[in-house]
Amino acid sequence: MNFTIENALIAIEEGYTTVDVQVVEGKIAAIAPNLDVVGTAVDGRNQLLLPGFFNAHTHSSEMWQRGIMSVLPLELWLAELYDFAPLDPEQVYLSALGTAVETLLSGGTSVVDHLVLIPGQELETIATAVKAYREVGIRAFVAPLIQDESITAGIPSGESAQTHEPYFRSTTATLELIEEAVRQFHRPDEGVNILVAPTGIQLCTDALFTGCIALSDRYNLCRHSHLLETRAQEKLAQEKYGCTAVEHLKRIGYLGDRTSLAHCVWLSDADIAILAETQSTVVHNPLSNLRLGSGIAPILKYRQTGVNVTFGCDGASSNDSQDLLEAIKIGSILHNVTDLDYQHWITPRQSVEMASLGGAKGLNLADQLGSLTVGKKADLVLYDLTSLSLLPRTDPVGLLVLGRPTNVVNRAWVNGKQIVADGKVTTINVDELRQELFNRSQWDTQRKSQTVAQIEAHYRTVMGL
Amino acid sequence: MNFTIENALIAIEEGYTTVDVQVVEGKIAAIAPNLDVVGTAVDGRNQLLLPGFFNAHTHSSEMWQRGIMSVLPLELWLAELYDFAPLDPEQVYLSALGTAVETLLSGGTSVVDHLVLIPGQELETIATAVKAYREVGIRAFVAPLIQDESITAGIPSGESAQTHEPYFRSTTATLELIEEAVRQFHRPDEGVNILVAPTGIQLCTDALFTGCIALSDRYNLCRHSHLLETRAQEKLAQEKYGCTAVEHLKRIGYLGDRTSLAHCVWLSDADIAILAETQSTVVHNPLSNLRLGSGIAPILKYRQTGVNVTFGCDGASSNDSQDLLEAIKIGSILHNVTDLDYQHWITPRQSVEMASLGGAKGLNLADQLGSLTVGKKADLVLYDLTSLSLLPRTDPVGLLVLGRPTNVVNRAWVNGKQIVADGKVTTINVDELRQELFNRSQWDTQRKSQTVAQIEAHYRTVMGL
Repeated sequence: MNFTIENALIAIEEGYTTVDVQVVEGKIAAIAPNLDVVGTAVDGRNQLLLPGFFNAHTHSSEMWQRGIMSVLPLELWLAELYDFAPLDPEQVYLSALGTAVETLLSGGTSVVDHLVLIPGQELETIATAVKAYREVGIRAFVAPLIQDESITAGIPSGESAQTHEPYFRSTTATLELIEEAVRQFHRPDEGVNILVAPTGIQLCTDALFTGCIALSDRYNLCRHSHLLETRAQEKLAQEKYGCTAVEHLKRIGYLGDRTSLAHCVWLSDADIAILAETQSTVVHNPLSNLRLGSGIAPILKYRQTGVNVTFGCDGASSNDSQDLLEAIKIGSILHNVTDLDYQHWITPRQSVEMASLGGAKGLNLADQLGSLTVGKKADLVLYDLTSLSLLPRTDPVGLLVLGRPTNVVNRAWVNGKQIVADGKVTTINVDELRQELFNRSQWDTQRKSQTVAQIEAHYRTVMGL
Repeated sequence: MNFTIENALIAIEEGYTTVDVQVVEGKIAAIAPNLDVVGTAVDGRNQLLLPGFFNAHTHSSEMWQRGIMSVLPLELWLAELYDFAPLDPEQVYLSALGTAVETLLSGGTSVVDHLVLIPGQELETIATAVKAYREVGIRAFVAPLIQDESITAGIPSGESAQTHEPYFRSTTATLELIEEAVRQFHRPDEGVNILVAPTGIQLCTDALFTGCIALSDRYNLCRHSHLLETRAQEKLAQEKYGCTAVEHLKRIGYLGDRTSLAHCVWLSDADIAILAETQSTVVHNPLSNLRLGSGIAPILKYRQTGVNVTFGCDGASSNDSQDLLEAIKIGSILHNVTDLDYQHWITPRQSVEMASLGGAKGLNLADQLGSLTVGKKADLVLYDLTSLSLLPRTDPVGLLVLGRPTNVVNRAWVNGKQIVADGKVTTINVDELRQELFNRSQWDTQRKSQTVAQIEAHYRTVMGL
């Protein structure tokens, strides 16, 4: 489906200009004023055209627990999360749809889903998420979340000697599972990608990391993990390796220009230099880091050191939304309190570049995605500048990033295929989705996590509380 | 207009319950299951009923510059703001309407507008804002922003000897102006209140504060000011008084149970104890404090010390929105990174109480507003729990506070009068408002502030940059 967007506003070096954009066979074919109409004409008047953003870290099935998770730090929160994790693939399907819809309607055309797998139904979980993303038409980076140590191993031992249950599935079996998922579902040309995604140093052995590196090399897969989200993980890395987690990951060869690392809150300056040197990408999840009290990631330092940074919503139980514009806003302004010199602060235009080109870089796709460039794939979003939330007319990018845009995504395309029109997702029935989410849930506040009750005392001791 | 809301969900000690609510002559007459219908029946099914929130600090006319203000700290930002401030009462009218609409559609039924006055048209500015708020029907607390020192006096002198232009209007003339505004517009029974509102210690003499105290006592007016928003103001207070700003304000008798103070970022523990002892209220503006790099207000300490805290959006040029739910969310989760002990973190239910009863307390109206209590005024909001952003069904208050609710305010009443129905403001034509805002503005990014150019070097020196 070829088309030509007419008279859209785009950001240029010095302000804005009005242009037409031709899209042919899924790619941007021309950007200039007064172009001939190729294919369908699309009215771009009073609309801002931007490259689609990346929701570069989320866990879709957390949508089932948003709003209800206790006010807890990551380690305890995770215990509660897993006590009530959805175990039905139909739930995975619906929450992947919901994640895709909320991401799209806040400017995201790509989603990196660090997907929690239902034990015993791992391939079915992956198949289900892939199906949902294909139906919506969002560009999907499905990163099956794997580990080979059990959850209590993620808390530092401190002075005490802790023993942990072995994880229920062997490292080898886990790696075979991922390889099978790659064979069945990894179709980059169709907008579906599988990533190797060991959850992080807190719950993974070196054998798992090394196996993932091998798969990544063999199949040209991106790598995705959590990294140093909490103080507890910083302590744990020292206990486990006698060095920082970043030093260890560098040593075993996990870092690189197709490795994206969610959170990165507790890194030393030397660690930051390693990320820059290895061209690894930081995925900043500001809302989750606040909600879980993880800390403020040193994003200004990353930028000054030349580390690529992009944004993620993180799972909807630690956010508790999938509004990418909210993550971009807070992930931009939050850092102004960490550096007195305002010349280092992130500008709205820089935020847009981080959310688009930064996301593409993190997935090793900067040559194909992330900017309005002739020859790149047409993952595009048109924002309605006549929305009350983007008025009065001032600086459109400033309004979009620093304001609270509501109902502003008018149209969106992925790979040149339109999937949002007149502010609505056109590929699935969102009213039916709402009805399904409603029917399969109930208002509830009385639940209690058994696991939190078991581990809380140890956590408080180790963390000096 | 009497009415009965049927089958609405309300929060109770242990979870939620479904009730009917009778409203008679603007007040809550009964709350119980299965009540007789008095007046009009309102369907409350699948909706959460909460008391209206307070947008307890804003500057409505800043809406004209949202999205375009440079990335600067308060003192320089303020210079830019005033270089481009709107000077036409029609603009004041439209931005007050816009502020009211965005506040209402994010759960606020009261707004405290620290209103910037057009020089030479001060009473007209106040009259215009009052007119706008009366038209929308939101409960209005108009706090004309006054000062009697010129803007450069707000930056500490440091080592240098600074002289400042005298302010263009005398202290006496300013106080007479406020007294006249009180005579003309202060009508608490009609939902319009005038406050005395010296901007803060940075630009006001003791004569102005003292005059405001006298007016407050004579006419029973609430008091509203900025307080210690920035490090620069902390320095300035020491230069000006040789003690902290809070100690000084206590000494001159400005603090009390009808005094609300916006920001309160840079207070010592002794200052915090003074706020508690005087029963003053802190208005927390988290988004503005991040955007301007002012800092993170010690909100958990305030709560532990017994200081009343509520939320404000602050003006839309430092936010850059008037979405109260966004301010409540960020103002709640932001503090989790300031205290390792999660037992001190703010829960969603506490946030709701801060936004409602906390706001009422700060305006000395806790006996009349801020909770679902028989006998209190019916400032009420019904949230649609079938909105995608509040699904799946988990904990409604958790979803509302921690999520990113979009299009969720279904109905709202102020003083028992319905002003939002089916998600739309019914009292004014919002499409016409959008059209006016559009017509009276243009996309622009090329402006430069003369005043910032003049004062920036001094600011950088004093702040050690």
